[in-house]
Amino acid sequence: MRIKDLNKQDAIITATVELVNEIGFVSSSVSKIAKKANVSPATIYIYYKNKEDLLVSTYIEIKKKMSKAFLQNFDDTKSLKDILKVFWNNGFKFVSNNRALFQYTEQFANSPFSELVNQVEMEKHFEPMIKILQKGIETNIIKDVPFDILTTFVFYPIMILSNPKSCKNIKLDENNIDIAFNLAWDAIKN
Amino acid sequence: MRIKDLNKQDAIITATVELVNEIGFVSSSVSKIAKKANVSPATIYIYYKNKEDLLVSTYIEIKKKMSKAFLQNFDDTKSLKDILKVFWNNGFKFVSNNRALFQYTEQFANSPFSELVNQVEMEKHFEPMIKILQKGIETNIIKDVPFDILTTFVFYPIMILSNPKSCKNIKLDENNIDIAFNLAWDAIKN
Repeated sequence: MRIKDLNKQDAIITATVELVNEIGFVSSSVSKIAKKANVSPATIYIYYKNKEDLLVSTYIEIKKKMSKAFLQNFDDTKSLKDILKVFWNNGFKFVSNNRALFQYTEQFANSPFSELVNQVEMEKHFEPMIKILQKGIETNIIKDVPFDILTTFVFYPIMILSNPKSCKNIKLDENNIDIAFNLAWDAIKN
Repeated sequence: MRIKDLNKQDAIITATVELVNEIGFVSSSVSKIAKKANVSPATIYIYYKNKEDLLVSTYIEIKKKMSKAFLQNFDDTKSLKDILKVFWNNGFKFVSNNRALFQYTEQFANSPFSELVNQVEMEKHFEPMIKILQKGIETNIIKDVPFDILTTFVFYPIMILSNPKSCKNIKLDENNIDIAFNLAWDAIKN
């Protein structure tokens, strides 16, 4: 694949995200996406089987990028609290710098297309964090509760607080991100 | 207004929720909603100025219903923890029994239409709970942190855990709802 082609694929993904955020999954079509990406529909069909494949692939690309950003400077020699704090701060940084990508994943997760994603495969991208939480449970540092409950208090608050639609009244500065982390930690610690 | 008209209005709201959940805000039109509600478009324009007014009014109706359900058996002579527990359980009951309504509000909150809602007016419906949280802060029972952070840990977890798209691996039975409440309480308590 030449650099030119990679640029094209980037343009297609960017256009997909923009169009879906603007007009939704149902109204978005391959031809409209092609127009926005400044490529021909035929070019899109080189890389993707159909609209469904394009939407799902875009989601998977974003999730990979997201897990990489969240797990930056992951260091399992640190304490669980410190590891989580780095993850937490990375999360806020990524979501606030990539609002459009994040909006796409939220819409996608609530759409029927999400059934087409292999969730086990997706979770593998977050494996280092999952392992460290498991270890935290085994060593009694955090509560022995189902993973879905843990992530509700240490992962989703990043999404809720980063969303100006749900977090209307406060400035998301370092101080408030720290305060919120203390609540998350108090929720899960033993 | 005759009973017949109230039924019509109910049918219009139900059809609006169903259609928007199916095809999104952009593709939903007054004529499609009218068809689904089995009324003429002219009937819709008796009650609502336009599509925008219909979508916003539907959101406000659902939010009113929701606050009423969440605040059922609200008793400010109880302890803050007990009051929150009743609110928490009401929340899970309402969201699991009204998935479609809830899905509509989530989509709406992330759409540009949400700018048209008077948020101060909306918050008034939750006033008893807001007052009791304020009292909890003043009496040092819960942490003195911004409201947006408190609600992230005592209100949004209800939404996240009730959503089968974000809570995939556990059964949302009484036991898990109790466990999650303990995490929420540990997050906010002093």
